[in-house]
Order: sequence, then C-alpha cells, then structure tokens
Amino acid sequence: MSFCDLALDCVTQLQPYVPGKPIEELERELGVTNIVKLASNENPLGPSDKVLAAITEASKDLTRYPDGNGFTLKSALADKYQLNVDQITLGNGSNDVLELIARTFVSPNNEVLFSQYAFAIYPLVTQAIGAKAVIAPARDYGHDLQAMSTLITDKTKLIFIANPNNPTGTYLVADELEAFIAQVPQQTLVVLDEAYVEYGDLDVNTIDWLEKYSNLIITRTFSKAYGLAGLRVGYALSHLEVADLLNRIRQPFNVNALALASAAVALKDDAYIAQTKQLNKQGMAQLIAGFDRLALSYIPSKGNFITVDVQRNAEEVFSGLLHQGVIVRPVGNYGLPQHIRVSIGLEEENQRFLDALTTILGKIS
Amino acid sequence: MSFCDLALDCVTQLQPYVPGKPIEELERELGVTNIVKLASNENPLGPSDKVLAAITEASKDLTRYPDGNGFTLKSALADKYQLNVDQITLGNGSNDVLELIARTFVSPNNEVLFSQYAFAIYPLVTQAIGAKAVIAPARDYGHDLQAMSTLITDKTKLIFIANPNNPTGTYLVADELEAFIAQVPQQTLVVLDEAYVEYGDLDVNTIDWLEKYSNLIITRTFSKAYGLAGLRVGYALSHLEVADLLNRIRQPFNVNALALASAAVALKDDAYIAQTKQLNKQGMAQLIAGFDRLALSYIPSKGNFITVDVQRNAEEVFSGLLHQGVIVRPVGNYGLPQHIRVSIGLEEENQRFLDALTTILGKIS
Repeated sequence: MSFCDLALDCVTQLQPYVPGKPIEELERELGVTNIVKLASNENPLGPSDKVLAAITEASKDLTRYPDGNGFTLKSALADKYQLNVDQITLGNGSNDVLELIARTFVSPNNEVLFSQYAFAIYPLVTQAIGAKAVIAPARDYGHDLQAMSTLITDKTKLIFIANPNNPTGTYLVADELEAFIAQVPQQTLVVLDEAYVEYGDLDVNTIDWLEKYSNLIITRTFSKAYGLAGLRVGYALSHLEVADLLNRIRQPFNVNALALASAAVALKDDAYIAQTKQLNKQGMAQLIAGFDRLALSYIPSKGNFITVDVQRNAEEVFSGLLHQGVIVRPVGNYGLPQHIRVSIGLEEENQRFLDALTTILGKIS
Repeated sequence: MSFCDLALDCVTQLQPYVPGKPIEELERELGVTNIVKLASNENPLGPSDKVLAAITEASKDLTRYPDGNGFTLKSALADKYQLNVDQITLGNGSNDVLELIARTFVSPNNEVLFSQYAFAIYPLVTQAIGAKAVIAPARDYGHDLQAMSTLITDKTKLIFIANPNNPTGTYLVADELEAFIAQVPQQTLVVLDEAYVEYGDLDVNTIDWLEKYSNLIITRTFSKAYGLAGLRVGYALSHLEVADLLNRIRQPFNVNALALASAAVALKDDAYIAQTKQLNKQGMAQLIAGFDRLALSYIPSKGNFITVDVQRNAEEVFSGLLHQGVIVRPVGNYGLPQHIRVSIGLEEENQRFLDALTTILGKIS
C-alpha cells in the first residue's frame, strides 16, 4: 500500500509552491558569495531600528504564547483604517489568510475564479480543497474583468483579484474595479489581494468599499513595503460576519509573538514606507532605463518588481544570472517562459543585475 | 442572506479554541498587576541567552522570506534523531502539524479516533473537515487503549494519542503503547503527540518505532520544554512518503525566520532542558505537597502541569484566583467541571498560586 492511496486526491495532485532560493542555500549549492537576491519582492531597505527594538522587547516573553486575539495589532489596524476590530482576521502572512478564506467557503463542488498570470497561491489553495479553478484569459498580462464577469456561474464561490498583480505588476483602475465588484452576485465572495498596494499609488481607498460591498474581502500584508517578510503577518479586512467565520477556522496562535509586536510598530512607521516608495521609484526607473538600453520589452509595473521579456529561454537566463550571484525569478510556471521577474533592489544591486544580464544575454542567443 | 449560509457547515459549527488569557488582557480587564500566569503550560524559565542572541542575529535579515525548506533546523533535527531530513515536516507550532495531517488524509466520510479528555485541538481539526470524531472513554482520566482498539473501524483514518496527555498529564508505558500501535491496521495513521515528552522521562525512544510502523507519525514541539511558545515551532516525524504529502499542503513559509533560527539553537541547548526538567520536578513536588495539605486529590502528571480536583465549581475557583492575579485553566470544556489545570511555575509563582487557592477554597464551599 502507498500512503498516496490514503491521502485525499486533491493533496496528491498538488505541486507545492516553489519559493525563491534562500541566499544561504544558493551559496551552498554554487559555492558563490556576495549574492544579490532580487527574487522574492522583498524590501531591500532592511528592518527599521524601531522594529528591531520591538523584537528585543517582545523577546523577553517568548516562552509565553502569543496573544491569540492579536489585540494590539488589530487595534492599531482598526484605528488606521477606521474599522471595527472584529472586521480583521490576522494571518501567518497573507498566504494564510487566502487559504483560510478558501477553506471557510469553498467546497469541492464549487468554482474559484481568477486570472491567467495571477498569483500562484490561488490555484494552490483551490486545488488543496479539490474545487474547480476557472482561469480567465488575461488582457495585456493583466486582469480582463470583462472576461472574468462572463465566467461567473452559480458555482463561483470565490473570485481572487490581485491589484497590483504578481508576477506581472499590472493594475486595475479604481472605477473599473469597483464596477466589476458591484456586479458580482452576493453569494460570490471577491478577494481583493492588495499585497503590493503601498507601491501602487492607487487613486482610491478601497477599504471604503467594504461598507458598500459586504461580499468583498481585502487582504494585505506586512511582507512587502512594511519589510517584515521573515515574520509572516498578513490580514483580511471584511464584513464582520465573514471575519467571524474566518476566525473560527484560524489556528489560535497563527501569528507569532515577535511578528505581532513588529507589525504593530511597523504599521505606524510612515517614514519607512515613504523611504521604501522613494527607493522603489528610483530603482524602477533604473531598471527600465537598463531594459531600454538592452532593447528588452517589459510589463509596466505598479509593484516592487518588474517582469521583462528576455527574448529567449528564461530558465537559461535565470541560471546564467545565478552563476554570477544574482537571483531573480523565472516565471515559466506562470506560462511566461521567456520572462523573468526581478525585484527592485538597492541601486548597486539593480546595477549588479543589469550588468550580469547584459553579459548573459550576450552569451545566450 | 447570511454569510453563515455561504460557509461550509463544518466551519459554522466550529467553536474556536479558547486560548489562556494573555497577561496584558487580564491586566486591562481587571485592573490588576503583578500577575502570575500558570495557564498555558509555558516554560517559566524564560528564554535562554543563546536564543536571544540567535534572534538578534536573524533579525538583520527579517525583510527576507524565511527558508521555506527550513534547511538548518531540519538538518539539526535529522542529526539529533538519526532520521532522513525528508522525514520531517515543520509546523507553525505542533497545532499546525496536527491540522496538516488531518487535512492531508481525512475526508468528511472518515472517522478520527481519540480519547475522552484528550487535547482540545483533536476535535477541532476533525470538525474543521466535517469528519466524524469517535471518542473513546477514558480510564483513570487517561487513554484506555483497549477501549480505543475496539472503536477502530474501516473508516478510521486517524488516531490521535497524546503521551503525556494534556490536560490530564496521564501517560502510557512504552510496552502497552507499542502493542497498541502494532495492531492498528496499516490504512489507519497513528499520531503520537509528544508535546510534553521531555518532561515525561519515558523509558523508550519512540522515534525508533518509526522504522517498524510506517503508519506512525510522531509530533513534537518547541513550545514547552524548549521554551519557544511565542515563536510557534512544531514538527512531525514520519515515513518519507507521509512527510512528502504533508509538505505538499504545508504553507511554504509556515514557520517564520526568527522561529527557525531560535529552534535550531534551542535544540542543542541540553543545559536549558536539564534546568527546565529540574525546575519542573521541584515545582511538581511543591504543588503536590500543597494539594495534600489542602486534602485535594489530583491526577498524577508527567507533564509540566497538574490537574487538581477542587471539589467545587472550578469556574468559580478560576475566577477567584483571577481576582487575586493568578491565572490557571479551568477544564470544564474537557468535561472536568470540578478540576483546574495549573502549570508548574517558578517556586514563588507556585507559592502565590497555593496561597491564593487556600484563600479561595476557604471562601467557596
């Protein structure tokens, strides 16, 4: 007997999400040092002193369980967004929240709708339940909301929309997005995944929509602009009743004590966010100028990354860059076999990448 | 329309796990200070300097995602237990691992078997799937393995055994336990939850059983003797194929970067474990002597806690203790309405509890 026979079919069919290579692992594998990692859309600024101080303080109590209700962090979020604290569901990264939403509402005979080229976790959480993933064709690498509308059926329980989208960086303007949400049937939940919202400079506060659309769930994260990827904190903002359901299935201590303490401090650090956005803007311009010099086309991005068409097998380019100590992300698994996604780093990191890319492209025709 | 109508039935029927009250929350509620918390079986020693140093070091990189494969920690575990690294599944606390096991193997038409008075997470993970919980009556507050055997059916997919058990502290001797495991049908998985194993001084290395019984999964945690409850690290040791399945459904970054770094250091800190066990032994003797003086009977425990029969409504005793700034755990939710569970603390904390208990029992008849 095989244990695969004992497991649920939906689990045996899962291909696990492949994270970007950690720097230590690559150093081990290739015997290289001084590596530049531009693979996981991380904040290149490093942690703020305020966060480090919060960790030191909270560490004193780390033999104690975290606050399972996340009182301090949830209060800070409620305050910032002018919401009821009970509209918030904390997650171990927004990944956790996305999974909780699916596990709360989706059964194997439901459909989950999302776009081609959308974030890889959407098909994974759908498959883990054994529900049907319905994938709307993209328009210019981004969400085609009209195409998505036509694919909504009686069975559609959940729609995932990433804005800005990862890995393409595409974004939807507020009017178009709101018009879409407004026509989604009440029994279908819309998850608006705003992991990159801080970079987007969008023209509307989408959180105001929660009052109008009770089937809307907004997810956000501390892993990107807030610079806490290593700590895993994400959250959902929703109707009270939705949050109550999500919190029933949530593991009581899903966000750890140092993560809770850090996020509460990071949330109030407007200077860090401003510096992050400024650095990102400059780095984006630097990379675009480099791609223009190399005559490479790219997908215009509102994220902290940009996806570029390298006009040849992207795995080879990825591998060539690796051997020069630069880690980026090939996106063949997204159906983009000639593109690589590169995160915006510090100026010198971006330059290392552009120099290495120039060398590699000269070698691979 | 209610969102409850949209959610899965198994979710709407869930009563969330109620964690012990965090100290800050109690201070807020009651306006008391100098609180002694003996409610969550936490290590009263506080974090070791080695762990604090590991956190400071790892914090430098916290804008980076954790290593999704947990290479360093898994290597350290494999080394310690002489296992293949691919037999290990890391979890965000062992709670996470227990849930992953259920979600990988249990479908709504399966049965999950565990004992009366066993850990509250077992019914929760069973309900979250909508499977049938089969509860074997206890013997002397502990697992009655004979009764459990008779309840195994074709539908039994999973058996949870906690040894030592929480909240009763009862334990099974190795021979009896192994004989039980040996006769469980191959298509039924046995989860041996050893969260408290370090306190138990058991007479056998259960990890050796993994070679003999491929349907055995052992779970352990860093939250108890290792003193990392705030960081959430647990793990499962199993057959390779079982671990492969669990890792498919595991969220790639379920254990955060500071947790991974701390656990790898804590695992090697034998002196901390020795000190922890010594303190626990002394504290256990101190509490037992106190209960004897008060003529209260208790359940003999191999954990870092002891459950005592207060001979009256335990909620009232709990509440009385709370107002004296001592937090313990009433276990009415486990079907023990006259018992409270108290964690072993520092000598002065244990004394505060005994003094407060003496006062309270004098007031409540």
